[in-house]
Amino acid sequence: MLQVLITGGAGFLGSRLARELLAAGQLAVGGESAAPIAAVTLADSAQPPADLAADPRVRVLRGDLSELLAPGEAGWAAAGTADVVFHLAAAVSGECEADFDLGLRANLRATESLLAACRAHGTTPVVVFASSVAAFGGSAAHPLPAVVMDQTLPMPQSSYGTQKVMSEYLLADYTRKGFLRGRAVRLATISVRPGRPNAAASGFLSGIIREPLAGQRAVCPVAPETAAVVASPGRAIAALLCAATVADATWGDGSPVTMPALTVTVAEMVAALERAAGPAAVALIDWVPDPQVATLVRGWPTRIQADRAAALGLRPDPDFDSIIAAHLAETQGSR
Amino acid sequence: MLQVLITGGAGFLGSRLARELLAAGQLAVGGESAAPIAAVTLADSAQPPADLAADPRVRVLRGDLSELLAPGEAGWAAAGTADVVFHLAAAVSGECEADFDLGLRANLRATESLLAACRAHGTTPVVVFASSVAAFGGSAAHPLPAVVMDQTLPMPQSSYGTQKVMSEYLLADYTRKGFLRGRAVRLATISVRPGRPNAAASGFLSGIIREPLAGQRAVCPVAPETAAVVASPGRAIAALLCAATVADATWGDGSPVTMPALTVTVAEMVAALERAAGPAAVALIDWVPDPQVATLVRGWPTRIQADRAAALGLRPDPDFDSIIAAHLAETQGSR
Repeated sequence: MLQVLITGGAGFLGSRLARELLAAGQLAVGGESAAPIAAVTLADSAQPPADLAADPRVRVLRGDLSELLAPGEAGWAAAGTADVVFHLAAAVSGECEADFDLGLRANLRATESLLAACRAHGTTPVVVFASSVAAFGGSAAHPLPAVVMDQTLPMPQSSYGTQKVMSEYLLADYTRKGFLRGRAVRLATISVRPGRPNAAASGFLSGIIREPLAGQRAVCPVAPETAAVVASPGRAIAALLCAATVADATWGDGSPVTMPALTVTVAEMVAALERAAGPAAVALIDWVPDPQVATLVRGWPTRIQADRAAALGLRPDPDFDSIIAAHLAETQGSR
Repeated sequence: MLQVLITGGAGFLGSRLARELLAAGQLAVGGESAAPIAAVTLADSAQPPADLAADPRVRVLRGDLSELLAPGEAGWAAAGTADVVFHLAAAVSGECEADFDLGLRANLRATESLLAACRAHGTTPVVVFASSVAAFGGSAAHPLPAVVMDQTLPMPQSSYGTQKVMSEYLLADYTRKGFLRGRAVRLATISVRPGRPNAAASGFLSGIIREPLAGQRAVCPVAPETAAVVASPGRAIAALLCAATVADATWGDGSPVTMPALTVTVAEMVAALERAAGPAAVALIDWVPDPQVATLVRGWPTRIQADRAAALGLRPDPDFDSIIAAHLAETQGSR
């Protein structure tokens, strides 16, 4: 009987992951045979969706993650009994640029506390960490290579990316020492992210599709020729589940795995929107350049060669039309 | 009038740096014109050498660095008034492998505290951080390239190296945000390090020269054909002073600069020892293989192409004979 801990479990990715795990009822952790899931603990500062909170197998831990994970606290105990931990909780990029201390606390300190809690109990859980392609960065002085790979040197140009890189290295060292079995996955920007807009600088990559599809106006802060790497929520969940389930030798060492992603320009995204919902939807986009967002976006990769992920069987979305189709199917199903 | 803070100021590198600064009496910080040094604060858990403690310009802060740097404490205040900080304090590689918590506290937490203290006062000091080529690492699965460069991906295979990489990234983000002017220097293994042996896994690269020159036996834990990158204490001090004094634009961005180093095999070091002190000195070396040390050493680079450092005018030692000669001159002068 498995114990699962999901930090950020009330977020859109954590909630969806929890639903999929509860629906399956079992998981094969780290290459072992599948075992039934006894409980899924959702640790988050926000309240999880009602359907999850109502599930008798779900346990909700609400509060600041660093505080929850302090020795003796409920999150610390949950880390100690977990067979697998999905560490998804994070302050997003825009928040971290605006509030440096928030980023340090929510992204760096919370990861330090989580890993320490896992180690303290000696139970060597599989720890899946949602890192980000924002780790790569790249600046005018040290631009990223045209194609980013697993072994590309990270040069983060945001506090969020810096904290992700630091957490990746810390996780790798805990793994090397045998304290836990860490698997860091660098997620691409999720698009189309359901729900309300958040403070991620990449938020517009969902907003310019999600809002017009719902008949609402959206702001696009970058030029149409801006390229980005994106992945649908379904592909992100698949990457996290793959990280949780493969054997240690299949996963490789403790260094991060970059997930496959679709390269798409904003113009191509808008063309797919027009094919799905017509010119009226496209007319709902307001093009209002934001230099600060544009600077952050320039520090993100535009093309990924995800060799390790490909060897694990992970694939990018085939095109943006299919991403929109999946978004429409999923949001109609859940509302 | 300049205020200088040196963490690890009682160590051999910190002491020597303090002596050179006090002898010069002035420093040109960060490309500005030279200004007189009003005070040098040495923060260390150990007591500094008597000659330094007796200098009226020296202030000694003894204690655990994390505690000294807590808000309101003496180290925190010293960081707030410093024009330039040399952050040299560290638990060494062997200690960090043996005591994971010590490494986290002494290397990661102390750096976090120091940078937070510098930021809290809004004085944007130049912060020179002594990182290490142990950052590079490399494993059987992901070996280092034959020649390591500034932009080589770090894959540390020790907790010490991991903590150095994490500190480098944190320093770069503080620099990007304008909270301070960070300069991380990846030092090569110092040889010949004067004084007593320490718990660094690289300690034998000094011990097999220093002890025989003093008529004492020394253990070499690796095979003669083992290659390493080394630098004399004088070259390390030169790199730290260069980092402190050049202008921001000359230094470049906040990413670490790898210092030039001499590639030498243990056999070549021993041959130089024989040229300096005869076969009797060489006979004082006991060859006792230590697999744990050998594993750590295999994760260190053996050849460095230090482009950024070369552009700053830094050069490796020309050969190991000159390193031995400098060691003999310096230790005869100070004893």
